[in-house]
Amino acid sequence: MSVLSSVLEAIDANLERSLGRLFELIRIPSISTDPAFAKDCRRAAEWLVDDLKTIGFEANVRETPGHPMVVAHHAGPAGAPHVLCYGHYDVQPVDPLDLWEADPFAPAIEDLGAGRKVITGRGSSDDKGQLMLFVEACRAWKQVHGALPCAVTMLFEGEEESGSPSLKAFLEANAQEFKADAALICDTSMWDRDTPAITAGLRGLVGEEVTVRAANRDLHSGEFGGAAANPLHILAKVLADLHDETGRVTLPGFYAGVEETPPEVLTMWEGLGQTPETFLGPIGLAVPSGEKDRSVLELVWARPTAEVNGIAGGYAGQGFKTVIAAEAHAKVSFRLVHKQDPVKIRAAFRDFVRARLSADCSVEFNPHGGSPAIHLAHDSPLVGKAKAALTDEWPKPAVMIAAGGSIPVAGEFKTILGMDSLLVGFGLPDDRIHSPNEKYDLSSFHKGQRSWARILAALSG
Amino acid sequence: MSVLSSVLEAIDANLERSLGRLFELIRIPSISTDPAFAKDCRRAAEWLVDDLKTIGFEANVRETPGHPMVVAHHAGPAGAPHVLCYGHYDVQPVDPLDLWEADPFAPAIEDLGAGRKVITGRGSSDDKGQLMLFVEACRAWKQVHGALPCAVTMLFEGEEESGSPSLKAFLEANAQEFKADAALICDTSMWDRDTPAITAGLRGLVGEEVTVRAANRDLHSGEFGGAAANPLHILAKVLADLHDETGRVTLPGFYAGVEETPPEVLTMWEGLGQTPETFLGPIGLAVPSGEKDRSVLELVWARPTAEVNGIAGGYAGQGFKTVIAAEAHAKVSFRLVHKQDPVKIRAAFRDFVRARLSADCSVEFNPHGGSPAIHLAHDSPLVGKAKAALTDEWPKPAVMIAAGGSIPVAGEFKTILGMDSLLVGFGLPDDRIHSPNEKYDLSSFHKGQRSWARILAALSG
Repeated sequence: MSVLSSVLEAIDANLERSLGRLFELIRIPSISTDPAFAKDCRRAAEWLVDDLKTIGFEANVRETPGHPMVVAHHAGPAGAPHVLCYGHYDVQPVDPLDLWEADPFAPAIEDLGAGRKVITGRGSSDDKGQLMLFVEACRAWKQVHGALPCAVTMLFEGEEESGSPSLKAFLEANAQEFKADAALICDTSMWDRDTPAITAGLRGLVGEEVTVRAANRDLHSGEFGGAAANPLHILAKVLADLHDETGRVTLPGFYAGVEETPPEVLTMWEGLGQTPETFLGPIGLAVPSGEKDRSVLELVWARPTAEVNGIAGGYAGQGFKTVIAAEAHAKVSFRLVHKQDPVKIRAAFRDFVRARLSADCSVEFNPHGGSPAIHLAHDSPLVGKAKAALTDEWPKPAVMIAAGGSIPVAGEFKTILGMDSLLVGFGLPDDRIHSPNEKYDLSSFHKGQRSWARILAALSG
Repeated sequence: MSVLSSVLEAIDANLERSLGRLFELIRIPSISTDPAFAKDCRRAAEWLVDDLKTIGFEANVRETPGHPMVVAHHAGPAGAPHVLCYGHYDVQPVDPLDLWEADPFAPAIEDLGAGRKVITGRGSSDDKGQLMLFVEACRAWKQVHGALPCAVTMLFEGEEESGSPSLKAFLEANAQEFKADAALICDTSMWDRDTPAITAGLRGLVGEEVTVRAANRDLHSGEFGGAAANPLHILAKVLADLHDETGRVTLPGFYAGVEETPPEVLTMWEGLGQTPETFLGPIGLAVPSGEKDRSVLELVWARPTAEVNGIAGGYAGQGFKTVIAAEAHAKVSFRLVHKQDPVKIRAAFRDFVRARLSADCSVEFNPHGGSPAIHLAHDSPLVGKAKAALTDEWPKPAVMIAAGGSIPVAGEFKTILGMDSLLVGFGLPDDRIHSPNEKYDLSSFHKGQRSWARILAALSG
C-alpha cells in the first residue's frame, strides 16, 4: 500500500468521527457581525485550537482588535515545502430564521435520494465544512505516518463575514511567521458535483464616490432651468461616457495591462457549457451586457468593468418636485484584471470626471478599496500538481476557473507575504451560503478531505 | 377721501392682524406631495374657508380625488365684472431640513437691516403669502365699504406643488361656476423690489417619472458585472443623450411649435439689464448652461428645456456596496414654450427611452403635469388697467416680463374656461421658494394687498 493510499483509507474509516467533529463546530453560533455572538466566536476559535492540539499542532488563540485568529504550526520533513492553510470559522447571520427548515445550529445529515446526502446547518459549507478538510487531512496523515508530508501552518480567521477588519494588520505584524511557499485557501466552489476546480483568477477592485456640485442651493427648474448647470446632467454625461457602443470602457489607459485570454483557456471555458441563457436566465436577463463577442464567463472572469453601484440626487421621493439639485452623487467601481494598476485607474477616472465639469462646478471624490487582480499562472508547478491530485480523486478532471469577485485575503497574502494562493474549494452552487438552509454535500466533505490529503502529498513530492 | 384711498388706509391699519393670519396659515405644514401631510392639507383648506366666511364669502371645502379645493363666492355691484382669483395653499417639501435656519413651519419676521423686513417660513412666498393678498384686499374693501367693487370668486388649490392632478377634472365639472371675465393669479414675482411685473408668458410643463428595470434582484457586481445589464447605465445614457453639445434638446420633434422671440421683445428684455453675472452670480454659478448664444432671460423665458429633477438607484448610503441594482429611477421634466404640444413631447420622450433599452430590460413611466405654454397679449385692456394700477402703487412703473416656470392653471383657465389670466405676483428672486429658508418681503405682503385692492378697483372702473 502506498504512502498516500493508506492515508486515504484512514480518511474513509474516520468519516463518521470527522462528521461528529464538524457537527460540534457547527453547533457553536459564531456569527461575527453581531456583537451578541462574540463569546461564541471565541468559543469556536478555542474549539479549533483544542482540536489542532490533539493532532500535534502547536496551536493558539491569537488576539486581534476584533475576533481572535486561530494559528497553528506543525513541522514537516527536512527540505519539504511549507504551506499556509487559510479558512474562516465565523459564519453569516441566520435571519430570516423562519425560512430555515431546521435550527441552523443543529447540524444533521439529510438524504436527498439518488445516493446524495448533505450536511445541513449554518457554516456547513461556508466555511466550517471547508476548513475542517485541512484539519482532517492532516489528522489522517498523522494517524497513519506520525508525520505530515510538509510543514503546515493553519490560519483560521474569525471576521471574514464581516469584512476582515483585523486581517491586514495581523499579517503585517506577523509576516515572518506566515511566510510560506504557498497559501492554500479553501473557501471556493467546485464547477459541479463531479468536477473539481482551481480558481486561478480573481478580479481586483477600485471604488470611487463622486459628488458633483453646481449651484449653491437647490433651484426651481422653472426659474433657472435652461440657464443654470444641472449636476445630474453632468453626472449622467460622465457615467454614460464611461462605455462606448461596443461596451468597452472609455477611460484613457484603462486597458493597459489587460491581456487577451489565451485561446486554450477560452476553449476550456467554452467546454464548461455556460451560455447566456444558463448564466443570465436565473436572474431574469437574456442579453449579455458589456463587451461584444465575448462569452459570459470571459466577461466576468477575465475582462475589466466599470459599474455604477449607486446614484442619488435631486428629489426622488413620492410625487414630483421640479428642482435643479445643488449636487449629485454616484458610487462607481471598476473590476480589474491582470496587470491593471488601481492607482492609475483611480487617477484616470478623476481626470475623466473633471474634464466634463463646467468651469463653475466642482467635484469631490472619496476612494474605496483599491486592489489589483490576482492571477495564478496556469502552467505553474503549484497548479500542475494540484490539478493532477484533484483529477486523481474526482470523476472528472479538474478545471481552471476564475471568479469575478474579490477574495481580499488572497490579495493580502500576495502583497504582504509575497505568496501565491491556491484556491481550491468543494462548495457547490446550490449550497445556499449566506441564505437559509445552507448545506454541504457529504461527498464534498469526504472527498474534500481526500483531495487535500492528495494535494499535500503532491506538493511535497 | 376717495373710495380707493380709504381701502388702502384700512390695509395699512390692519397690517399686523393680516400678518397674524398669514402666520396661522404658514404653521399648517400642507405639503401636498407627501401623503403623510394629507390631514394638514385639509386643515389649511378649512382654515381658509373659515377665514373667507368671516369676510362674507360663501365659502366651502370642495372634495377632489386628492387634496380639497377652497371655493368662495362674493357678489359685486350690478353690472360690475366678475373675477376669479387663484392661488394655492399647498407647499413644497422642506428637505433638506438641516439647511433651514429655523423651523420651516414656525413663521417669523426677520429684520435684514436697511429698512427691509422679511417673513420667513415654508409657503411665506409660494404661495400662502401671495394668496392671502387677495383675501386681505377683499377684507379691507368689505370693512370700509361693506361691499366689493366687483364680483369675486376665490379658487385656492391644494395640489399645485404636486402637479395639480385634480384641477382639470374639477374645472371641467364646474365650468359654469368658474367662468368669469378674467382670472387673477398671484403666484409670480416682481422684477425687483421697486418694480412690479405682469407676467405675460409662462412656460408649459411635462413631467415624467421613469423606472428602468433589469435583473429580477440586486446582483453582486463581482459575480455578474460585465455580463448583466446595469439599469443605472441605461438611465445615464438616456439622460445624457437628452442634450447635444450645443445645449439643444435632442428629442425628435421637440422644437416643433417653438418660435423665435421677436427682436423688439429681445430688446425690451435686454433693457432690464440682466447678465449672466447678475442672473447666475447669486446662485454661485457663472456659465450659462443650455443653448448657446442666447441671453439668460431668453433661455428661461422663451426657450424650452429638458431637466433631470431627481435620480435614485443602487446603494447611495454611507460607505460602499458593490451592487448592480435591479432598477433605476429618474424624474425628468420639460419646460415648453409657444405651441409645443405636451402630449407629443411626452410620447416622444417615452419612445426615446424605449429605444435605449436592451431587449431584456423594461421601463415604467408615471406622468406628472402636462400643460402648454401661456401668452397674454401686451396690448389687451386687462393688461393696460393692471399696469396703470401697479404703477400707481410702486416706486417704478410696472414691466411686462415672462416666466420660466409653469402655472398650469393658467393653461386650464384658457382651454377649459376660455378665459385669460392676469399674472401679477410680488415674490422676489431671492425668496428661495422650493428651497430651505424661504421668505417673503414684508413690503411685498403689504404693498401686494394694496396692489390687488387697486387692481380690483381698476378692473371695475
